[in-house]
Amino acid sequence: MKFARDAAVDVLARTPATLGSLLGGLGEEWGRANEGPDTFSPFDVVGHLIDGEETDWVPRARIILRQEGNNLFAPYDRFRHLERNAGRLLDTLLEEFARLRAANLDIVRSWHLTPAELELPGTHPSLGPVTLRQLLATWVVHDLGHLAQVERVMAKQYRTEVGPWAEFLPVLSDREARSNR
Amino acid sequence: MKFARDAAVDVLARTPATLGSLLGGLGEEWGRANEGPDTFSPFDVVGHLIDGEETDWVPRARIILRQEGNNLFAPYDRFRHLERNAGRLLDTLLEEFARLRAANLDIVRSWHLTPAELELPGTHPSLGPVTLRQLLATWVVHDLGHLAQVERVMAKQYRTEVGPWAEFLPVLSDREARSNR
Repeated sequence: MKFARDAAVDVLARTPATLGSLLGGLGEEWGRANEGPDTFSPFDVVGHLIDGEETDWVPRARIILRQEGNNLFAPYDRFRHLERNAGRLLDTLLEEFARLRAANLDIVRSWHLTPAELELPGTHPSLGPVTLRQLLATWVVHDLGHLAQVERVMAKQYRTEVGPWAEFLPVLSDREARSNR
Repeated sequence: MKFARDAAVDVLARTPATLGSLLGGLGEEWGRANEGPDTFSPFDVVGHLIDGEETDWVPRARIILRQEGNNLFAPYDRFRHLERNAGRLLDTLLEEFARLRAANLDIVRSWHLTPAELELPGTHPSLGPVTLRQLLATWVVHDLGHLAQVERVMAKQYRTEVGPWAEFLPVLSDREARSNR
């Protein structure tokens, strides 16, 4: 499928409601469950998505749109949220994410990005040259991957409870447990 | 985490809204996308979940609760939906799933299942002895696995559009593509 600006924004706009449906009011036992040491809980995933809203997607898009100097992005801190959200509750993080996402998509829509602008280059600190189109497509895939992560983490909490059905449930053996991206 | 009847029903009750948020009104291009030959699209996943509502979870729970004969479940047809839903639209399947799920959870709640009833046995045609508790826990994990599948299928549609970011996005290399369960 080819990237399409409005379709991408539509998918991005759905993520807060999807997370709210999955996690809103669910309680901290599910919210804080994870896949073992150094893995993310649903709470951590929402915190990581908030970091993306505050430090990654729109700030990097702005660097690209400015086209000043080498368009180099600041490195992304994947663990900023651990300190930022200590003592917070999952439901307040969900509300915060929804607010930040809505504001960021308002900004993106206000740019009325043209096909030519979508091909403007930026420089990723480790990946090198990228385009605005690739950045926005990555934002979409990043959301979807983390939604799937939340569901996988939740599913694994019942790994022993399903008894012999475990062999029919591939989500329980998914190998991406250590992915914190 | 130990299985808890009311918490499990709570998670199951969320799935229609989660699917609606992900897929409602999104259009058939996303809805019919898949991971290659013999893999499920989001449309197929919703059809498969409808089959579960009509032929799997509650019918099997009823067999267990009756405790007549050998409590043997009918084999589950994982491809019933392919014929059943030919020519349908994703949005109408989403509505149908929501209606069936709500009705089934009303039935489950009406049983007021006791801890002793949750340990009652059934016989799975290939797995052998299982309990009602394991059946209900499997229903939850099955939902979560298929939600993650929908997001993975969607994410993969942008595999080439993310350019060099692909190596940072584990959802794009997930090996469970052929899982139709």
